[in-house]
Amino acid sequence: MPAYTPPLADFTFLVKDWLKIDELYQSLGLDEFDADLALEVIEQGGRFATDVVAPLNREGDEQGCKLNNGQVVTPDGFAAAYQSYVENGWNAMLGDIEYGGQGLPYSMAVPVHEMLNSASLSWRLTSMLTESAVLAVTKHASDELKAIYLEKLVSGEWTGTMNLTEPQAGSDLSLLATKAEPNDDGSYCITGSKIFITAGDHDWTDNIIHMVLARLPDAPPGVKGISLFLVPKFLVNEAGEPGERNAAVPSALEKKMGIKASPTCVMNFDGAKGWLVGEPHCGLACMFTMMNDARFQVGLEGLGAAEASFQGALTYARERLQSRAPQGVQQPEAKADAIVYQPDIARMLLTQKALTEGNRALAMLYAKYMDIAHNSSGDAHDNAEGVLQFLTPICKAFMTDAGLETTSLGIQVFGGHGYIREWGMEQLMRDVRIAMLYEGTNGIQSLDLIGRKLTRDRGDLLGLTRTAFAELTDKMTDLKTKAEAAELLEQWYQTSLEVKGYSAVEAAGGACDYLAYSGYCLLGVLWYSMADAAATADNPVVAAGKQKTRDFYVQRILPRAQAHKSALQQSAETLLAPQGGEYDYL
Amino acid sequence: MPAYTPPLADFTFLVKDWLKIDELYQSLGLDEFDADLALEVIEQGGRFATDVVAPLNREGDEQGCKLNNGQVVTPDGFAAAYQSYVENGWNAMLGDIEYGGQGLPYSMAVPVHEMLNSASLSWRLTSMLTESAVLAVTKHASDELKAIYLEKLVSGEWTGTMNLTEPQAGSDLSLLATKAEPNDDGSYCITGSKIFITAGDHDWTDNIIHMVLARLPDAPPGVKGISLFLVPKFLVNEAGEPGERNAAVPSALEKKMGIKASPTCVMNFDGAKGWLVGEPHCGLACMFTMMNDARFQVGLEGLGAAEASFQGALTYARERLQSRAPQGVQQPEAKADAIVYQPDIARMLLTQKALTEGNRALAMLYAKYMDIAHNSSGDAHDNAEGVLQFLTPICKAFMTDAGLETTSLGIQVFGGHGYIREWGMEQLMRDVRIAMLYEGTNGIQSLDLIGRKLTRDRGDLLGLTRTAFAELTDKMTDLKTKAEAAELLEQWYQTSLEVKGYSAVEAAGGACDYLAYSGYCLLGVLWYSMADAAATADNPVVAAGKQKTRDFYVQRILPRAQAHKSALQQSAETLLAPQGGEYDYL
Repeated sequence: MPAYTPPLADFTFLVKDWLKIDELYQSLGLDEFDADLALEVIEQGGRFATDVVAPLNREGDEQGCKLNNGQVVTPDGFAAAYQSYVENGWNAMLGDIEYGGQGLPYSMAVPVHEMLNSASLSWRLTSMLTESAVLAVTKHASDELKAIYLEKLVSGEWTGTMNLTEPQAGSDLSLLATKAEPNDDGSYCITGSKIFITAGDHDWTDNIIHMVLARLPDAPPGVKGISLFLVPKFLVNEAGEPGERNAAVPSALEKKMGIKASPTCVMNFDGAKGWLVGEPHCGLACMFTMMNDARFQVGLEGLGAAEASFQGALTYARERLQSRAPQGVQQPEAKADAIVYQPDIARMLLTQKALTEGNRALAMLYAKYMDIAHNSSGDAHDNAEGVLQFLTPICKAFMTDAGLETTSLGIQVFGGHGYIREWGMEQLMRDVRIAMLYEGTNGIQSLDLIGRKLTRDRGDLLGLTRTAFAELTDKMTDLKTKAEAAELLEQWYQTSLEVKGYSAVEAAGGACDYLAYSGYCLLGVLWYSMADAAATADNPVVAAGKQKTRDFYVQRILPRAQAHKSALQQSAETLLAPQGGEYDYL
Repeated sequence: MPAYTPPLADFTFLVKDWLKIDELYQSLGLDEFDADLALEVIEQGGRFATDVVAPLNREGDEQGCKLNNGQVVTPDGFAAAYQSYVENGWNAMLGDIEYGGQGLPYSMAVPVHEMLNSASLSWRLTSMLTESAVLAVTKHASDELKAIYLEKLVSGEWTGTMNLTEPQAGSDLSLLATKAEPNDDGSYCITGSKIFITAGDHDWTDNIIHMVLARLPDAPPGVKGISLFLVPKFLVNEAGEPGERNAAVPSALEKKMGIKASPTCVMNFDGAKGWLVGEPHCGLACMFTMMNDARFQVGLEGLGAAEASFQGALTYARERLQSRAPQGVQQPEAKADAIVYQPDIARMLLTQKALTEGNRALAMLYAKYMDIAHNSSGDAHDNAEGVLQFLTPICKAFMTDAGLETTSLGIQVFGGHGYIREWGMEQLMRDVRIAMLYEGTNGIQSLDLIGRKLTRDRGDLLGLTRTAFAELTDKMTDLKTKAEAAELLEQWYQTSLEVKGYSAVEAAGGACDYLAYSGYCLLGVLWYSMADAAATADNPVVAAGKQKTRDFYVQRILPRAQAHKSALQQSAETLLAPQGGEYDYL
């Protein structure tokens, strides 16, 4: 596969010309950070991704993981790359300074995360889940637990996991059955079986900290009876070192479509010792602290894979000579023209570019509101949190749907070669397919958006999100661009208000179409905004690309929004079984 | 994976209630065939697919193929299943009676082919290519060659291959470099390397007959200098048996995303002995005899995988209990309702059903015109050929695009379990992904449709196709249905006339959107037609399903047509590099 190159020109544009991050940092009192430092971090992170991680990805897919005598073995080089990651402080980017973290803004870390995903989705997963565990422990654990675990999780010396799913309890966590019985010493005895546990075991670190959902003996039924526990692989002794082996053991590895270098474990908790995190029966709320972060991060997996696929396809399309372009001979000295000059190939590449750079802008906007939320209080904080709440399911589902589409297009540009493993293009599609499923399927995301975020949650999350995007349209200087963008945003807002009035059944039937509709409309606003900002950007190639790609997006991608709008406005009747009957006609 | 069941109820509806095949056969003078016989063949074919082929599919994916000392070894059981296929006469369904074939109508064979694809795309490929070779030999080879090869290809005692692609010549066959030098005995000496040769070698039969494109010494450059040769793996001795090994050798096997049980070979022809098929320098036309058949058959791969995925997802959705349905408790005795009652799950299942049964109707309509073309002369023959010409790229590309979408939806219905190999749902997606690439990428199909079939080919193929679909609308009995269907068809026709006036560049830029637009519109007409016919169908469950699914298709799928129409009507300007410049902004 053609080598991955960090998209530094686009990050520079986004950080300097579009987000104008210096102004953001100043307004938040983050005086120690500026755009130059951000770009330095991004460049170094990109170098780590390309030099250390990317070279492992293809062979990692072939080797996969093994379970030898209850111990997971990961592919060659994966553990060493992780140790280098930890030693160079990358794992600690977002951690609290108090616990050894660097406390960097999200707008610096998110580009690094995207690039790590481009380099290897399998490799990145473990550290991503560790960051989520850090959040849960930071926010919900006792000071005693923090003292023992947090610093090592922040640095990455130990990794973290999320243990939610059980065979009978996937999307529906109310069916969760794992039990937690109190011990005499204030700890708990955890018994049950969990499936689909990413990095449930591995050979990267000398301890693994499992965050496990289970029920206390007096737990009410349903999701209100779930508590969160911290369960280390090795019990930590008084010196703070891993001691006795805990009864939290991987009993099997799943054989999967992709992310084969990431061990997906069946975990058996056979009276394992654990400690309560947060209040009893409030585990779901604690878990959502991890989950919301993980959902955005899964969106970044879609983005990272999309960028890698786009780069691979573009390089190939520039080199592969087949036929003459219909607009006339382009390379008279060669036997044929590069396929990049074929309008249909350009259409596929521009679709990849439009979705990928559009989603990158969405991710950077999300990061901006993360920075605001973390560095402000009162209304500013609450409003930023509201925008994040609304955008989280969109980032997760829209960016991973786009990940599948773009990686499939990447294969298509390669023709038959795209289907051959050695090129790596098909691996991107296999790897990214999981992102539509885990941390809540994209259907669950859609129901979260239309049911909870649009309708049931307190506060006007829709209105806050409109305001966030209206800030972009207000800033536009080209009047035609501004008018078109504002109209698109208003159309989306009015349609959203309509949808807000749907019954629960109509909402459930239209959920996925509403999320896709929202994604395409909001990306449209982002494209108008980027094209407008590009007019005064330093880099003329990036500026031309933004304007051309905005045109492409508006002309050839945005019409999809109308198809989704049309679908979501239909009655749910065709989706329901006949009253009292079976779907026997399905 | 839940077991595959032949969709006999739908075939019965299509054959009896919709196509009214008895009338068709009578009108064509095919007195020996009727609907009952057709359904008997379909049922028996379905039994073979489920009992013999389907059980091999999952393990075949895990085992894959091996190349041992220049000989391909296929997975356990694959060869034996093929021998049973041949012994039971399935390979000969379509072959000429003169050469031992059964001369069955296409409308009987196509359902069997679909079901074989549902059972195993990998397994089916070899016999599919043999059928294509039979066509080329029947139509273009000398009587002498026919006498030696045809009977054994028809029966399947020997298999056939298509050898077109070379490393530098994929979509662009003008770059083909394999050479054919005349020998003294009227044969030719073939030298060159071919890639992506499906079943280029295997352990199923004692001979393999390669159909190879190569250039004669006096060949003009480009596609007008390509000839077709028949190159057996073993030279056939006077007794008609395989004798000396020919220098046509598999030098490597590709490692692929899917269809791992089908050996994809790099073939080296190192002075191999071959015989000219057809006229010198007319190889491309001969190859298209094979290719057009293969393109429709590849469409059936999309259809077969889609049906298998739909069945798997539906079974799972009926069994998997998670959460309560928003329209109210459906299974009060259980801890949760089956997910089939979730409107968003029903949306996915209905999308699968609408695309799959719509495409099945398209395939059966295609088969009907194949039967007309093969059993008529004069205008009736030419008009049927015209419809087939127009529909071939649509069948190939639209049905395989739908194959990817539906198999991905099948994974999505399974949630995380869909990503796990043992369920078989992800294999369907990996296996079917190739169908968008081979026998001409779907981009090539689109260019064929918009450039050749719509515009350049002699005869009004568009008008003939409109007439074919207008025959369906004319027959509708419900006036509202009839009016809606006729209007949809007319919209498509008018848009097609507009597109016919496009420049070559605009056409190339809009090609894929025009094909998709056509597919969605024509499937819409088919859904109106099926729903109308269902009103008087014998089977009430099928009838209800057709009407409900027609509603679903029109409400929630057909809006996509407008998005494609909107995209294809845009200027191609955004797709082109700046005059004299590079796409440096891409």
